Amino acid sequence: MAKKMANAFYAQSGGVTAVINASACGVIETARKHKDKIGKVYAGRNGIIGALTEDLIDTSKESARAIAALRYTPSGAFGSCRYKLKGLDVNRAEYERLIEVFEAHNIGYFFYNGGGDSADTCLKISQLSKSMGYPIQAIHVPKTVDNDLPITDNCPGFGSVAKYIAVSTREASFDVASMCKTSTKVFVLEVMGRHAGWIAAAGGMASTEDCEIPVVILFPEVTFSKAKFLKAVKDNVKKFGYCSVVVSEGVRDRSGRFLADQGLKDAFGHAQLGGVAPVIANMIRDGLGYKYHWAVADYLQRAARHIASKSDVEQAYAMGKAAVELALKGENSVMPTVVRKSNKPYKWTIGKARLSRVANVEKMMPKGFISKDGFGITKKCRDYLEPLMRGEDYPPYGKDGMPKYVQLKKVAVKKRLEKPFKLK
Amino acid sequence: MAKKMANAFYAQSGGVTAVINASACGVIETARKHKDKIGKVYAGRNGIIGALTEDLIDTSKESARAIAALRYTPSGAFGSCRYKLKGLDVNRAEYERLIEVFEAHNIGYFFYNGGGDSADTCLKISQLSKSMGYPIQAIHVPKTVDNDLPITDNCPGFGSVAKYIAVSTREASFDVASMCKTSTKVFVLEVMGRHAGWIAAAGGMASTEDCEIPVVILFPEVTFSKAKFLKAVKDNVKKFGYCSVVVSEGVRDRSGRFLADQGLKDAFGHAQLGGVAPVIANMIRDGLGYKYHWAVADYLQRAARHIASKSDVEQAYAMGKAAVELALKGENSVMPTVVRKSNKPYKWTIGKARLSRVANVEKMMPKGFISKDGFGITKKCRDYLEPLMRGEDYPPYGKDGMPKYVQLKKVAVKKRLEKPFKLK
Repeated sequence: MAKKMANAFYAQSGGVTAVINASACGVIETARKHKDKIGKVYAGRNGIIGALTEDLIDTSKESARAIAALRYTPSGAFGSCRYKLKGLDVNRAEYERLIEVFEAHNIGYFFYNGGGDSADTCLKISQLSKSMGYPIQAIHVPKTVDNDLPITDNCPGFGSVAKYIAVSTREASFDVASMCKTSTKVFVLEVMGRHAGWIAAAGGMASTEDCEIPVVILFPEVTFSKAKFLKAVKDNVKKFGYCSVVVSEGVRDRSGRFLADQGLKDAFGHAQLGGVAPVIANMIRDGLGYKYHWAVADYLQRAARHIASKSDVEQAYAMGKAAVELALKGENSVMPTVVRKSNKPYKWTIGKARLSRVANVEKMMPKGFISKDGFGITKKCRDYLEPLMRGEDYPPYGKDGMPKYVQLKKVAVKKRLEKPFKLK
Repeated sequence: MAKKMANAFYAQSGGVTAVINASACGVIETARKHKDKIGKVYAGRNGIIGALTEDLIDTSKESARAIAALRYTPSGAFGSCRYKLKGLDVNRAEYERLIEVFEAHNIGYFFYNGGGDSADTCLKISQLSKSMGYPIQAIHVPKTVDNDLPITDNCPGFGSVAKYIAVSTREASFDVASMCKTSTKVFVLEVMGRHAGWIAAAGGMASTEDCEIPVVILFPEVTFSKAKFLKAVKDNVKKFGYCSVVVSEGVRDRSGRFLADQGLKDAFGHAQLGGVAPVIANMIRDGLGYKYHWAVADYLQRAARHIASKSDVEQAYAMGKAAVELALKGENSVMPTVVRKSNKPYKWTIGKARLSRVANVEKMMPKGFISKDGFGITKKCRDYLEPLMRGEDYPPYGKDGMPKYVQLKKVAVKKRLEKPFKLK
């Protein structure tokens, strides 16, 4: 258990989303309501690096209005990082440093807002009480556009990217449908999702009963077959005059190689991808001779707060709030989750998961979500996705036509330790 | 002058936009209010090709509700085409065929919704009275995301793409700012604009006095210098920790070659481009060693009705309405224009331009709109762009979280001619 009136540490980790700041808003606003139990909320500047380097942001210096504006501001307002703590046996110095910093700033609550890798970091922190005798409660706040965390029904961040991809695919498909008589017949949109095809699946939501659109989806879960793919596109062009293709960056061929492998790796050792759309477009040109256009949404998809899903914003906020409430109940080493109670009407409640069951576990799309031909989504998948994309939650706009996203003051907490810490 | 109670022909031409259907809505709703003077509005299925092949859509079969929904539906609802009429001396058969079709369907009004190439087609039609003795009034309705038509202050379609690019650049910049400590430092967004840098300029609107963002713009008007560009990016990364780059597809090097030339050409003989973003990203990697991400917005930018500018939607509708009103006044061979009366407050009115002064003329960015270093926009440019991006005009959404764009019935008008027409 954290000491009474201990301060809280909050940090954002990994790739950011359109709604991770809504979780930050939930954490900070809820902590502010419990000033009898939680002191200040210090945010790590650039995630866990802020803790290691004693670079803390005093969120109490931000006005209530600025904190409220986090709810509709995309990205990570305090800075994120790609930095995974090594095991205690490998780099004990890191843990000793964290305890030094936590002690110097009376930090008893640790809220870490991230995905699977970050859950692992959070798990390691949660074990500090036991492993190194430092009293701390570590709660993970789920976040990832990839929707690949286990146990929770879905991850905040995903619903908004799903809405963005579905809306964009519908819009671009309308465009191609207009042009296909004499010009572009195939539109290719590359989307994120390294291993799990959740985001690609959202492309299938562009087509509905009352608005039919031919969409071919290339999932990372389905081994790419050029012949079958070109046939699917050709069939659609014959029937509809055009075809849209939504391709996941993680699509692989029979040999297991990413179609778009550029040979780069990130700090977590993950391959860095990009550019599968032009690869697919060239196949269409060479194999079918159709005129094509291609787009790569990249960061636009995960930053698109302007078209965020209302469900997603609400759940992101609720996860932040729940994390603080779990901490106040004395919990440690857990993550609040979304528990789906029913589809029609959509009802959900908040549950919790042990971090040991969350860390480093990737949730794939269920087999029953991908249609038999491997290029589409099933009704089951639609029923799952629909509520997550539901509702609009527009940010306020200025007279200049631009969304009024907040840039925080980010006032640094005075350092109390003498020696700096060198990151490895 | 058209005969009394003649029918009208309306068609969409060239690349479509988020608001071209709002112009269609303006044309059809206004014509419906003047049933004493204008008979039916027939739309060309796939632009002028619909006229040549006698493939007409009877818009009177569409409900008032469906026509009203065009106001918030992106793309060209009747189908567009890239097809430019040749000169009367080169292909007289095309003109004779048009007159046959017009005569068979009692068409006296010709409304053509397009850009510079389409204005040329419209001009040729407007001369049919004189050149071939067929009574017709041809009015051009301006449309182009490229904003490159002369005389009019701006073109419907541009304001919305400008808003999309400015908002997306701001959002992606917030994302990169979060990631730059340990990961991505440079974000590159490729935008449309073959010759004129209007769309690229909109990327500069991402940064405002109350929300500073480092954006380097690569205009087609400015010859690309790798050394200067890399220095500009490096300076921003040193100062802000990150940098966003907005690059026009039309950027050329000193030899005049497109940085992204793929060697393809469209029906108008224009080079087909794509993929300058990865070229720029590779330069950054090799020259500066920064981690980067890149996006290509492609059709997403011009189809993004979900983030359309209110000014733009209003002007698109007003241009369609004005076109019909000009026709009712007996005008021929003209195009309604937007005339800017003042910036603060933004006031505009409707003017008109002779088609002979519009056809095949491309309006470039004024020199005074690009900052001295060639990488940014001036206050003059901001003052011009701001009102065009102003206001939001959201489409209605269904319970499924998707915008309710309309797909028309597109009932064909019964053919009256026996022989088909073969397009060349």
